[in-house]
Amino acid sequence: MGTGLIVVILCGLAAVAYGVVTSRAVLSADAGSERMRAIAGAIQEGASAYLKRQYTTIAVVGVIIFVLGFFVLGWETTVGFAIGAVMSGAAGFIGMNVSVRANVRTTQGAATGGLARGLDIAFKSGAVTGMLVAGLALLSIAVYFAILLAAGNEPGSRSVANALIGLAFGASLISIFARLGGGIFTKGADVGADLVGKVEAGIPEDDPRNPAVIADNVGDNVGDCAGMAADLFETYVVTVGATMVLASIIFNLSPGLGDLMLLPLLIGGVCVITSIIGTYFVKLGASQSIMGALYKGFIATAVLSVPAILIAIWATVGFDEAFTHGATSFTGWSLFACAMAGLIVTGLIIVITEYYTGTDYRPVRSIAKSSETGHGTNVIQGLAVSMESTALPAIVIVVGILVTYALAGVYGIGIAVTAMLALAGVVVALDSFGPVTDNAGGIAEMAELDSKVRETTDALDAVGNTTKAVTKGYAIGSAGLGALVLFAAYTEDLKFYFADVDVNFSLSSPYVVAGLLIGGLLPYLFGAMGMMAVGRAGGAVVEEVRRQFREKPGIMQGTDKPDYARCVDMLTKAAIKEMVVPSLLPLLSPIVVFFVIDAVGGRGAAFSALGAMLLGVIVTGLFVALSMCSGGGAWDNAKKYIEDGHHGGKGSEAHKAAVTGDTVGDPYKDTAGPAVNPMIKITNVVALLLLAALSH
Amino acid sequence: MGTGLIVVILCGLAAVAYGVVTSRAVLSADAGSERMRAIAGAIQEGASAYLKRQYTTIAVVGVIIFVLGFFVLGWETTVGFAIGAVMSGAAGFIGMNVSVRANVRTTQGAATGGLARGLDIAFKSGAVTGMLVAGLALLSIAVYFAILLAAGNEPGSRSVANALIGLAFGASLISIFARLGGGIFTKGADVGADLVGKVEAGIPEDDPRNPAVIADNVGDNVGDCAGMAADLFETYVVTVGATMVLASIIFNLSPGLGDLMLLPLLIGGVCVITSIIGTYFVKLGASQSIMGALYKGFIATAVLSVPAILIAIWATVGFDEAFTHGATSFTGWSLFACAMAGLIVTGLIIVITEYYTGTDYRPVRSIAKSSETGHGTNVIQGLAVSMESTALPAIVIVVGILVTYALAGVYGIGIAVTAMLALAGVVVALDSFGPVTDNAGGIAEMAELDSKVRETTDALDAVGNTTKAVTKGYAIGSAGLGALVLFAAYTEDLKFYFADVDVNFSLSSPYVVAGLLIGGLLPYLFGAMGMMAVGRAGGAVVEEVRRQFREKPGIMQGTDKPDYARCVDMLTKAAIKEMVVPSLLPLLSPIVVFFVIDAVGGRGAAFSALGAMLLGVIVTGLFVALSMCSGGGAWDNAKKYIEDGHHGGKGSEAHKAAVTGDTVGDPYKDTAGPAVNPMIKITNVVALLLLAALSH
Repeated sequence: MGTGLIVVILCGLAAVAYGVVTSRAVLSADAGSERMRAIAGAIQEGASAYLKRQYTTIAVVGVIIFVLGFFVLGWETTVGFAIGAVMSGAAGFIGMNVSVRANVRTTQGAATGGLARGLDIAFKSGAVTGMLVAGLALLSIAVYFAILLAAGNEPGSRSVANALIGLAFGASLISIFARLGGGIFTKGADVGADLVGKVEAGIPEDDPRNPAVIADNVGDNVGDCAGMAADLFETYVVTVGATMVLASIIFNLSPGLGDLMLLPLLIGGVCVITSIIGTYFVKLGASQSIMGALYKGFIATAVLSVPAILIAIWATVGFDEAFTHGATSFTGWSLFACAMAGLIVTGLIIVITEYYTGTDYRPVRSIAKSSETGHGTNVIQGLAVSMESTALPAIVIVVGILVTYALAGVYGIGIAVTAMLALAGVVVALDSFGPVTDNAGGIAEMAELDSKVRETTDALDAVGNTTKAVTKGYAIGSAGLGALVLFAAYTEDLKFYFADVDVNFSLSSPYVVAGLLIGGLLPYLFGAMGMMAVGRAGGAVVEEVRRQFREKPGIMQGTDKPDYARCVDMLTKAAIKEMVVPSLLPLLSPIVVFFVIDAVGGRGAAFSALGAMLLGVIVTGLFVALSMCSGGGAWDNAKKYIEDGHHGGKGSEAHKAAVTGDTVGDPYKDTAGPAVNPMIKITNVVALLLLAALSH
Repeated sequence: MGTGLIVVILCGLAAVAYGVVTSRAVLSADAGSERMRAIAGAIQEGASAYLKRQYTTIAVVGVIIFVLGFFVLGWETTVGFAIGAVMSGAAGFIGMNVSVRANVRTTQGAATGGLARGLDIAFKSGAVTGMLVAGLALLSIAVYFAILLAAGNEPGSRSVANALIGLAFGASLISIFARLGGGIFTKGADVGADLVGKVEAGIPEDDPRNPAVIADNVGDNVGDCAGMAADLFETYVVTVGATMVLASIIFNLSPGLGDLMLLPLLIGGVCVITSIIGTYFVKLGASQSIMGALYKGFIATAVLSVPAILIAIWATVGFDEAFTHGATSFTGWSLFACAMAGLIVTGLIIVITEYYTGTDYRPVRSIAKSSETGHGTNVIQGLAVSMESTALPAIVIVVGILVTYALAGVYGIGIAVTAMLALAGVVVALDSFGPVTDNAGGIAEMAELDSKVRETTDALDAVGNTTKAVTKGYAIGSAGLGALVLFAAYTEDLKFYFADVDVNFSLSSPYVVAGLLIGGLLPYLFGAMGMMAVGRAGGAVVEEVRRQFREKPGIMQGTDKPDYARCVDMLTKAAIKEMVVPSLLPLLSPIVVFFVIDAVGGRGAAFSALGAMLLGVIVTGLFVALSMCSGGGAWDNAKKYIEDGHHGGKGSEAHKAAVTGDTVGDPYKDTAGPAVNPMIKITNVVALLLLAALSH
């Protein structure tokens, strides 16, 4: 186990080293003209100011939780919490700092070296974020785990399990705030800028005359980059942590416990290395297909991960020994099959998401077509597509659950999700590429560079839309598949702590039905709050921009400069204010439900309802999140499809309808939808901590 | 028991007699000028033609099911199926026939006798439909139950239980087709007419120059009247039937069985009488508040129902005897408390729905306000409101489940839902009032009557929007509360038929999670299909209307007459074609899931997954349906609020945005949303029939 842990830590360090080296390579690139650097500087400044305030606010909540937790849960859990929170924040912060510097360099690269050079810088910048997310997540768990063991804790002890849950909680807390806060900022800016700019004033996207244009570009970085990084960091830590905790509980008396706990870490470790290798496969081929170049990197990683995972299993649990849990008996081969199932689920979700959000297929084209008959039919068709898009991923997840459970029980499901998440490095790399190219286009527009440059960055940006949707599908899909792992940890914890309480998880219990419904309403209420927050923030931006246009008529003639900073500042305040209440919803709901039902029906009923609530959150959360993320992506690309000259092209009535659809899709796909993912997990993690606290 | 059944049948006959007498009163009213009668005639003709085709298509499916069922399930179940289907069809058909005659009489009444006379005719027409729905539903169950007993079956025998389930299935089948088909017709027409008429051509609603205007009015009758009647008929039959079936299984060996089975019927019976009395309380007061007049009728019914239910309990189970099921022991008082809980849930759902869809409160006003910043923000806010509106009803339902279960177990929940549904007569009366006034306004507009008449009918129509939303909330709320009753019938049936199969309903089972997710996706997929169908039908209407405008330029000048019949015919074909596949989804899914899981994991796994699927459908279905119905109502009234002169009033940019929101809300609230209600129940009923078939 000691050697294995050292290997894992070395893999994590390799990812960090890759991040350092690659970010130097990115930063050494030419940052363009004075004007470009000035624009990029404004974006940097806004993004840093926002992130600083966001982290300050989270820190307040975090310190309160830390102090409370310290007394209720003990130091192992609370220190874990602090590590999870700080490292998640660090991954987002560093990633974003590279992004806001890579954007202008990508513009310059596209201007001087064309598509290949632009892609190179943007992708490298994304890869820095990706490897930092995976590497820091892995290091957080592995190093803290090693410290706990060195301090004399047994791997299967409760203090280790609680420490890992605390770590997950820290990551979840940052994630939900960052996803929501960043999401509200970016989409408030986007919606506001589009509505006044494109629709009312009739100026193109990223036009420097639009006072919200810098805010829009800041938003890409704080939402799509830092927010997404925190989300994936959390998904990684929760999944790997939960699988380890589950192993520590269900194989507590097994001699192979150490190996079974090490395995998820080692899978994460070896796949960080394959992800790093995979990044070198991203090269524009003769076909000049950007998506093709990115896929090459992903496929190389996935293919290399197969033998790598095989080696990880060989080095830990081996292939001869049989493990038993309940009625299931499995060997290393079963676990290998589970890991492969995880990779296949990842692949299928990517394919399905691309189908629903790509411009080459029926769904997006049907939205584009329906735009011809107006705003209303565009939105109806978009909503229909968003609802339909949940079916296939749900079936894939169901099959994944059944197959991996049959192979190796709940632990098998855990290994499958671990294998999915092990590719997080390269997936995040593909995703963070998006905001960089989006910014690069904005800078090209604002700096009034040759339209060729904008065309190049637009081509890069269009691909970013699809990769963004894919990442979200992947993150929420893993949450669905990981549902049983978290729920199993909850039930096993119950047995451990409260063996004397009779808990009935049967669907015939009214408390279970009540829990399912209460859990089911959380994503709806949470989604509503997120959407309203964006609506308010966007509406405020619209009024501010209208005011500036009214009071400074010179802006539209280009003789007066808009007050960019005011929009940024306004959105910063709005986002910070708006993110707090929705974030507290999943944090407090499990506690409230537990104590209310406890008072009414007793402890057994409260545990039943709480457990059912965890699954209820997953059942509706999965559909809410999948529908929002895919639907939003489809609306966005339907607009792009029309802008490419179909159904009347830019400026046509169909285009106006498509802009409306895109506006609706914005908070769907970038605020409410993705934030449901950490929301599901935070509810589960809080329930686990509640059990630990109650047992004290 | 014999006397009790006779009383129930007499109550049912009283409702039918009320229907006959009142419809004569409606039909004896003046039908207005030649021109008005001609318009009304065109609407009648279109509605009859549609309904004939709809029933013919359903008959084909029905006959296939009848023949299959006869061999697999025996005559009791199959005859029950036929009765349920035919009676549901009859209720819808007769109700619609009164509606299409009451519309023009309401117009004439409003023209000659003002608001009071218009309200009188419209409400009476609605009351005919309401009493026929409740009366025929009650008679179907009571008479068939009496026949089965007379044929020598024991009340607690399986043949009686299966016959009642068969009856419910017949009603469900009509309901899902009628809700979807009617919903697609009405909203296809509405969306199409609005998009070309209001938005493109700039002509007002119901303008006779719009070729889709007759189709729009036909749609009100076939969708909002006949479709809604079938839906509530089904909800009534399924709820009362399931409560009786549950009683027959769980109190099989109890001496009070007959009384416990009779009680739900008798509650239905006495409340039909209180509903009839309640209709006479609907009178316009000095305040001229239409909503107030309607509420007077509802409140009178609810208040009178309290002693009536008390008498029903006294006459059947009494107040002294204690019944025991599992750990729960209860008396007549407990059941009375459950019934009161049902009435309170109904009241709360009405209040909550009015809050979310009324123009006096924050949600609708927030949508109206957000229309100022454009189409996109209107839709974002509307979606947010629609999601938020699910939270309070869900909490009310959860509390209802917990309270009534604590009082009298699953049977107590059944009694609570029965009490809710017992008010169906008056609730449907309030609802069917809507399409009549909507039509009346259309006829006033097309016959170019004085604008005062239109103002009067508009005032009536605005109230119709809220009552429509209320009915939907009520129907779907009862489905949520009835969830446990249907699920309990499933689990008890399992124990009865397959005592040897080990079925695990614990949430820790992967099959249960798989079932929850598969069930959860059905409302999403079903909703997507419904929305797309409306989008397609609406889009086709838009093109047809544009074609007519293009080919006959005289239409817009008023010199040429549009081809109304073509739009009606087109929509008839489209609705019939589009309704089939979505309707088959809940019909076939339980069967497919059962056999797939059976092949993979064995019979126990298949029963677990199927059971979980039933709850999964309810969990997401409840939220999907509630959000769509309330959201749609809110969008509609936000538009009305703006038309009343706020945020710029008619013709302003805010109004255009609100029209878009209303268009999006149309299929939400009148097609996909309400159809989810029968969909939930049909899935459950099919599962029950599957058990019966498998045991043969």
